[in-house]
Amino acid sequence: MADQDLVEDGSVAPRGARGGADHAASAAPTRATTHDSPSPSAGAEPTRGAEPSPGLANGPLSRRRVLGTAGATGLALGVAGGAAGYAAGSASSSSSSSSEKVTPLSSLGAGEVRFHVKHQPGITTPLQARGHLVAFDLAAGAGRKEAAALLRRWSDTARRLMAGEPAAQDDTDIALDAGPSSLTVTFGFGHSFFARTGLEKQRPESLDPLPDFSSDQLDRTRSNGDLWVQIGADDALVAFHALRAIQKDAGGAARVRWQMNGFNRSPGATAHPMTARNLMGQVDGTRNPKPTESDFDERIFVPESASPSTSGDPAWMANGSYAVVRRIRMLLDDWEQLSVKEQEGVIGRRKSDGAPLSGGTKATETTAMDLEKTDAQGNLLVPINAHARITRPDQNGGAAMLRRPFSFHDGIDAKGVPDAGLLFVCWQADPLRGFVTVQRKLDRGDALSKFIRHESSGLFAVPGGAAEGEYVGQGLLEG
Amino acid sequence: MADQDLVEDGSVAPRGARGGADHAASAAPTRATTHDSPSPSAGAEPTRGAEPSPGLANGPLSRRRVLGTAGATGLALGVAGGAAGYAAGSASSSSSSSSEKVTPLSSLGAGEVRFHVKHQPGITTPLQARGHLVAFDLAAGAGRKEAAALLRRWSDTARRLMAGEPAAQDDTDIALDAGPSSLTVTFGFGHSFFARTGLEKQRPESLDPLPDFSSDQLDRTRSNGDLWVQIGADDALVAFHALRAIQKDAGGAARVRWQMNGFNRSPGATAHPMTARNLMGQVDGTRNPKPTESDFDERIFVPESASPSTSGDPAWMANGSYAVVRRIRMLLDDWEQLSVKEQEGVIGRRKSDGAPLSGGTKATETTAMDLEKTDAQGNLLVPINAHARITRPDQNGGAAMLRRPFSFHDGIDAKGVPDAGLLFVCWQADPLRGFVTVQRKLDRGDALSKFIRHESSGLFAVPGGAAEGEYVGQGLLEG
Repeated sequence: MADQDLVEDGSVAPRGARGGADHAASAAPTRATTHDSPSPSAGAEPTRGAEPSPGLANGPLSRRRVLGTAGATGLALGVAGGAAGYAAGSASSSSSSSSEKVTPLSSLGAGEVRFHVKHQPGITTPLQARGHLVAFDLAAGAGRKEAAALLRRWSDTARRLMAGEPAAQDDTDIALDAGPSSLTVTFGFGHSFFARTGLEKQRPESLDPLPDFSSDQLDRTRSNGDLWVQIGADDALVAFHALRAIQKDAGGAARVRWQMNGFNRSPGATAHPMTARNLMGQVDGTRNPKPTESDFDERIFVPESASPSTSGDPAWMANGSYAVVRRIRMLLDDWEQLSVKEQEGVIGRRKSDGAPLSGGTKATETTAMDLEKTDAQGNLLVPINAHARITRPDQNGGAAMLRRPFSFHDGIDAKGVPDAGLLFVCWQADPLRGFVTVQRKLDRGDALSKFIRHESSGLFAVPGGAAEGEYVGQGLLEG
Repeated sequence: MADQDLVEDGSVAPRGARGGADHAASAAPTRATTHDSPSPSAGAEPTRGAEPSPGLANGPLSRRRVLGTAGATGLALGVAGGAAGYAAGSASSSSSSSSEKVTPLSSLGAGEVRFHVKHQPGITTPLQARGHLVAFDLAAGAGRKEAAALLRRWSDTARRLMAGEPAAQDDTDIALDAGPSSLTVTFGFGHSFFARTGLEKQRPESLDPLPDFSSDQLDRTRSNGDLWVQIGADDALVAFHALRAIQKDAGGAARVRWQMNGFNRSPGATAHPMTARNLMGQVDGTRNPKPTESDFDERIFVPESASPSTSGDPAWMANGSYAVVRRIRMLLDDWEQLSVKEQEGVIGRRKSDGAPLSGGTKATETTAMDLEKTDAQGNLLVPINAHARITRPDQNGGAAMLRRPFSFHDGIDAKGVPDAGLLFVCWQADPLRGFVTVQRKLDRGDALSKFIRHESSGLFAVPGGAAEGEYVGQGLLEG
């Protein structure tokens, strides 16, 4: 894997939750360049607390993004204290058969994440507004060869669609007018994949099945799978377009095992550059590791020098990560019967802004939590079974995972109960030290556990990003 | 209903699909005013072909929208040829207990639609990115009195949430940080409502059950209902927040009969100021009536002077409209096996840009369709059974409906088939002249019909907007 083919994840373009700034647009090149040439990103400040450091490509404009207004050179916007922004492209050439006048893409559509990056996209990419999770099982008779061909097709489709281009053939045109809208497509391998392809020796120990937890009520038909694909985009049609393209690519080689839809706050919906909220109304993700932290990479990613003798990972997992996926149903009717004060006790943080309960009225979300602080009666301000206490890395031997979930809502049933909650996705270099350590502890005494139900579970090995001309998983399938 | 309490629907603020322009922000007032005072909207050009003329409120800022940066006076952005835009508010006062610095809302969150308007919001409001449809049945024992109290609660909640305020009590905080994000909440009454409340004499003839169509495969449990609520917003958490608040308001008076989720293109996802696409990849809504057309109001809305003797509508339906709601499953696997050329023949329009097939290569979406034009062999360029030919108002005695759908996607089943399609919602002054006329004709010979399946159906009387201090349906329930 050649370094020059890769863009480090440190390339960040602000978007999303910062009001105004995310809609800023700097003067853009008036001619399209290839999307493969790296470009400096304008601005360098991650805007969402929970999910920083995308591999966003800013300057280069794909063919589909430059159906622009002749002569326009982009937009400019100033905002006090805000970072700069997006290249809203324009060009005088047009490949459209329509003569109608079109205007440049605004920031949401223009957001473009690179496919050829060191770590696969969709891990440190800011949360997108819309997401699809889908697991596939290899078809009967499909083995290593068919899997390799599939991953090559999938990688090609992901690269194209993330650049705003149509699929290689028979594109559905569902996203024809739209920009890439920060689309990411991420691929992983489940435990069962390796026996089916004769690659047992390459199976990471980290894919050993997760232990059972007492609170699990897992639906096996919606759990695990040979292959896993995570799709995210800020536009629902762009995301669906990608989902259909990925499904079509599977052809006769693999079939859908399960598929789930999720969502997050839309870019620009809030004036606060604040961590996301979930459907319980909680600020969720405050203590997520930040890419600026010195140990971020080692906690989240398998080292580039991965080997069974050093990291315990096979070499093909270099720069990869392990994803734990849980459909966590929220029992909202029960939760919403609690007072806000009771809810805050369950979490250990203030509902309005996520500040720790130990911090007093002036605390903010980022104020350090004081686990020992008590009130006048000697009661702990952050209760002993509060969710935020139990999940703290410093209470779990430094265990850390990068949570990057989507909310889900699949309707309200005939009894009036919403089928809603969190499509929990967390990323770590070692799921045993990350997810399992924390979940074991939550299983024993988390005040939140009576308000949630784990309904499905998956664990997937997500290899590093593909270099130019390569496909995701090539090191495994051709290694 | 006092006229001075109402904002005409003609008040339009651009948003959405126009790249750049929708992110423009004019200098905003630095102090909040009440959301009830009318304000002129900046700019006057509807930006989405299919869904114009919202009652967007621009200037006034609710308390929740002004947790602003001291001293900032908003944003300014110039774009050649674009219309102006949004008030991105800021103020020096803050009601937040947090001391963190926050930035003004960007356009998506700041979009605010008025509740107290002549016609209920959510009819001519531009398509939002996220939608919920939900039907309720009155609980056993609940009658006119309970229904009146419910509509009063619902109207109060709708007014508050659309202004970016929390619900009157026990707000779930799911949308706490977000702006109103163009939230609309729209209320309607189904046929069965009137017998249950002893109001049969007030039931409009237009609510008489729709005829059966040969292609219907309707699920009765997901059809009709005493009460219907349509929720739309550009942010999924804002929409879900509203759905839960509306459900909570129902309390013991009504229970959910069915509930569906939908979506549309996100504002800013495309550079084209183009009509929406559906999940078949078609440009959908080209021939929608436009509010600028002189007969728009009479086609879509019940006249203000409604009476049984003139319009055939009860007086309480003044300024109202009738909504037909159909869950139309798309058989995407079949559809996608057609070539683009075949798909274009089914529709009668070019897939890339919606131009009529009669128009030649230079035609655009707005080029008039020539129904008689033939090729060298004498074949009609727009086939005789093309969907766009059959649905033309001039082929249906002037029948016109305002289609304002959401796409839906409820997952992929174990056979790999997506449960996806269109939550078709259309609006007209007279459903017999609008929907039924066209659907009868489609039923007989629409080339599209083999690729779709009507799975549920609803017909609802949607009264005019509520004046200040009043609630939706008050004229019916207290008339």
